[in-house]
Amino acid sequence: MHLSFLSKVQNVWASRPAMAATPISASVLVFPSMHKINPLSARWSSYPKLTSPAAAPALVQPETDVNGMPQFLSKLKFSQDGLVAVIVQHIDTGEVLMQAFADRAALNETLQTRLATFYSRSRKGRWCKGETSGAFIHVHKVFVDCDRDSIIYLSDPIGPSCHTGARTCWFSETSLSVDGVQEAGDHTHHADHAPQTTLLSLEQTIAKRREAMQQPSEGKPSWTARLLGNPELACKKVREEAGELCQTLEKSEGRERAASEMADLLYHAMVLLNLQGVSMEEVLRELRRREGVSGVVEKASRQAKPQ
Amino acid sequence: MHLSFLSKVQNVWASRPAMAATPISASVLVFPSMHKINPLSARWSSYPKLTSPAAAPALVQPETDVNGMPQFLSKLKFSQDGLVAVIVQHIDTGEVLMQAFADRAALNETLQTRLATFYSRSRKGRWCKGETSGAFIHVHKVFVDCDRDSIIYLSDPIGPSCHTGARTCWFSETSLSVDGVQEAGDHTHHADHAPQTTLLSLEQTIAKRREAMQQPSEGKPSWTARLLGNPELACKKVREEAGELCQTLEKSEGRERAASEMADLLYHAMVLLNLQGVSMEEVLRELRRREGVSGVVEKASRQAKPQ
Repeated sequence: MHLSFLSKVQNVWASRPAMAATPISASVLVFPSMHKINPLSARWSSYPKLTSPAAAPALVQPETDVNGMPQFLSKLKFSQDGLVAVIVQHIDTGEVLMQAFADRAALNETLQTRLATFYSRSRKGRWCKGETSGAFIHVHKVFVDCDRDSIIYLSDPIGPSCHTGARTCWFSETSLSVDGVQEAGDHTHHADHAPQTTLLSLEQTIAKRREAMQQPSEGKPSWTARLLGNPELACKKVREEAGELCQTLEKSEGRERAASEMADLLYHAMVLLNLQGVSMEEVLRELRRREGVSGVVEKASRQAKPQ
Repeated sequence: MHLSFLSKVQNVWASRPAMAATPISASVLVFPSMHKINPLSARWSSYPKLTSPAAAPALVQPETDVNGMPQFLSKLKFSQDGLVAVIVQHIDTGEVLMQAFADRAALNETLQTRLATFYSRSRKGRWCKGETSGAFIHVHKVFVDCDRDSIIYLSDPIGPSCHTGARTCWFSETSLSVDGVQEAGDHTHHADHAPQTTLLSLEQTIAKRREAMQQPSEGKPSWTARLLGNPELACKKVREEAGELCQTLEKSEGRERAASEMADLLYHAMVLLNLQGVSMEEVLRELRRREGVSGVVEKASRQAKPQ
């Protein structure tokens, strides 16, 4: 039962509304495909609330009816309250989406339904994330740490993971400077103070340069802004950097140069993605889709490329 | 004082021993730079234990001496035990390295020293990670979640984060199939059952194909194996895929095609990196190094490229 339920939920997610339009530069006339959206505003904005009246799968078996479940649960180190910590991580982007706690029943249910389920300490009971909001979290894999008291749900969320509507629960950054402790950030501007790993941080920097181009500026444009304003140059650079990456191998330029040229290629290619409104999350999702599929079979499954 | 301490620690890390050599294929003769190491074996293997006799910074101020610190700490929701959960995440790869708990004193110390510090529930006291092993964790940024009871230390580790010597604390995967609950993985083969997000998972797949090439096989080689065995083909494909990514913009082929071509380019470029023993972590580290540096200034700072 829960499988058809899941595919229903996934269909709703797949058909989510297109991302909102933002103004563009004039070069759209030259490159008609240059997209009008900012991929970051899509990635970071609140997802639409799903209105599905879905209830949690009703057919969860008690742990004693599942082969090996009581043994697995008994090997965990639950706290005095009967809980272990659970970290929910995005399978594609690596973002930490939320952290909560689970009891035996919640882990049993999560393993069976593959929907992130917890024990709510405030409500003192079972909590299947998304049951009321529609923002379920699809759990791909479950991991237990070395001390057996901390769990990772490696997951694909189908909506915002935070009850505020933000993409993740962390949007408040604390720093210490000579002036003392400062805290910044709120859920309405989630991206500004979220824990961004390097790739996401680079993507956001490119998106911010794009946004800044909407404002008049007298300063010399950044290299990113020049690329964004000149798609022909961006394409030229992507081809050039690909060649330079190849040369690191062909001319034995060394590991350091190879890492540097790959960084160049990645950055320029990400500018090209921004111009088309494509996020790295979408690229990673596509790479995951192909995982375990033979390259030859995968290639054959695609539509013919435009000539 | 702690700043010079940190730079000392970082120097030790920078001068860590080179990665171990593994056998290579014959094509090394054609491409002399093709590296003899598997980047994954480096990324996933245990780091060398640092032997620095470093002690924790001694000059941590009490919270009441730091402007804004008592106010910040008082806004957190500590448990009855006086703790909040802390998740340590790798700033470049996004890996969740470890999860522990912190009290007021640990957070105060972490913000001041920028070394990940916790409250050890087993030892019932202060725990600066790395103080005995040398495997300190450098904290770049600190984030508080929406409920103010869960913290992220966005970090750069200088050694293994797990007390077992594994890269992270999660190397045990639990799954449920028709046969019941299965658990797999141990710290000596960390990568096999670690929570791998899409990019790291792809990197590992490529590395596994490379390893498999050392064994005789009668089956048809995978596309990845063909690329790994033919660096000329791999270079040709990287140039070709870069061109196809550019065409998605130039010929308005649409967002889906752009994501797909970027996935192609990324995959082929990562094969090229594997051939040179370069990990994505190194590429991401290089991208982070450039962050906040003007592209023009950064370019000028590099050595002249070999012609």
